[in-house]
Amino acid sequence: MPRVAICAPSTPMTEEDAARVSRLAGAEFPGMELHFHPQCFLSDGHFAGSDAQRLDALLECANDPAFDAVWFARGGYGACRIAEDAIAKLDHAAQDKAFLGYSDAGYLLGALYRARIGHPIHAPMPNDIRREGGTAAVRRALGYISGDRSGLEPSLDRHPAVAFNLTTLAMLCGTRLMPGLANHIVMVEEVSEHLYAVDRLFFHLTAHLGGIAGLRLGRVSDVPENDRPFGQESEAIARHWCGRHAIPFLGAADIGHDAANRIVPFGLAGRAQGQ
Amino acid sequence: MPRVAICAPSTPMTEEDAARVSRLAGAEFPGMELHFHPQCFLSDGHFAGSDAQRLDALLECANDPAFDAVWFARGGYGACRIAEDAIAKLDHAAQDKAFLGYSDAGYLLGALYRARIGHPIHAPMPNDIRREGGTAAVRRALGYISGDRSGLEPSLDRHPAVAFNLTTLAMLCGTRLMPGLANHIVMVEEVSEHLYAVDRLFFHLTAHLGGIAGLRLGRVSDVPENDRPFGQESEAIARHWCGRHAIPFLGAADIGHDAANRIVPFGLAGRAQGQ
Repeated sequence: MPRVAICAPSTPMTEEDAARVSRLAGAEFPGMELHFHPQCFLSDGHFAGSDAQRLDALLECANDPAFDAVWFARGGYGACRIAEDAIAKLDHAAQDKAFLGYSDAGYLLGALYRARIGHPIHAPMPNDIRREGGTAAVRRALGYISGDRSGLEPSLDRHPAVAFNLTTLAMLCGTRLMPGLANHIVMVEEVSEHLYAVDRLFFHLTAHLGGIAGLRLGRVSDVPENDRPFGQESEAIARHWCGRHAIPFLGAADIGHDAANRIVPFGLAGRAQGQ
Repeated sequence: MPRVAICAPSTPMTEEDAARVSRLAGAEFPGMELHFHPQCFLSDGHFAGSDAQRLDALLECANDPAFDAVWFARGGYGACRIAEDAIAKLDHAAQDKAFLGYSDAGYLLGALYRARIGHPIHAPMPNDIRREGGTAAVRRALGYISGDRSGLEPSLDRHPAVAFNLTTLAMLCGTRLMPGLANHIVMVEEVSEHLYAVDRLFFHLTAHLGGIAGLRLGRVSDVPENDRPFGQESEAIARHWCGRHAIPFLGAADIGHDAANRIVPFGLAGRAQGQ
């Protein structure tokens, strides 16, 4: 059964929440081993420890041949501060591992995909245990790690795919972490952003996505009230900007900052780790 | 005396505020003519009229040889939706005009600078009349238009310079509107963003600014309270990311979303319109 190392490249989670995840795994996935790196519980300003502490923990997890998967504990913000250094220091032990997470962890998933290291996978994270219905989200990720493919995003087909938070992917564009996405289906989701900011992010992102096979829109949730309505919904925004750059808009993706968030292995789903 | 056309590529202002700006100009800059395009007062969802209405008004102002300057009424959001079409339709009458604004108007200033059309100038806008001390800001822009150079940002030197809102410039990167900034001093300011978002924007922006002469940081104001302190101030954030990309950090710039916001003609200040 798989051995899973958990670290927090962005923000910390609590030991109590880690214990809940461990109990769930113990009850439903006997034989699976979860190892929460103590760095998950550090705090340094916004982050789960300093850049050096977060980088070291990630490298310890990824470069240890005893682990089959590295599971990112939680999003928030901070992975982009260590991603480039991490890529430079990952060794052969990282090569066949699954790396799972979403949201801010997308900086690492994207950088790993660009560097062709391991199997980056958009998937729920341990801290999702705090969400309403979060047990199902955590169970979905644990199930995927143990070989169950029922949690895959349902539109996945013969095209290679990736899934990102909209802000995360927009910020990756043009950086040394950005993977080539030609011929990929690109899924994006967003949370807690005004619709004008979503429009602005699509202005930026679509300018960088020429040559993709198409874009799918995940859930855009918890949009804050603005002083006036934006005048377009998120799907109309996505269609508008895709249209300006001749990017096929392919409809909805079953991803988002919620308990229903489905799994998207980067690349071809059938080639993901464990298949 | 200069004739100034005012339009609103982003969000609307009120007729009352326009009248206050006109009274100020009439009292202190006799002979200057301000023409508020009626589009300034339109409203369509988030914007000062539809994309087509905002584009048409901008073209009417910029392509009318009777005007010496185009002054953008207000920021907010929306200029990026019409900038590319505007650039394609500007004619020779736009070539020698000054274009003044900041914040969201930076999409147009950047695109004009890239296309070498007119004289883009970071400067206060008519809607700044609403700020505390806003009369001084509006007076500074009117003074500059009428030939007074005392409002220039004080660090301007023999290097070409530009000034942008941080978010605006970050979103321009890699798009068809982004000017080349090699050997330029780049000034950025921000308002109403969490420090983690400022850090994220610097991660993105500095990856695109290789080859600039240096970065200066304007004011980062109205930072919202987060659930925990970020742990670094904005200058430390700017220094961190400049350091990662070997960009010289040159200190402060006297710009920001406030009444003290100084004037930065894009390029060499001594070559700006009127000198």
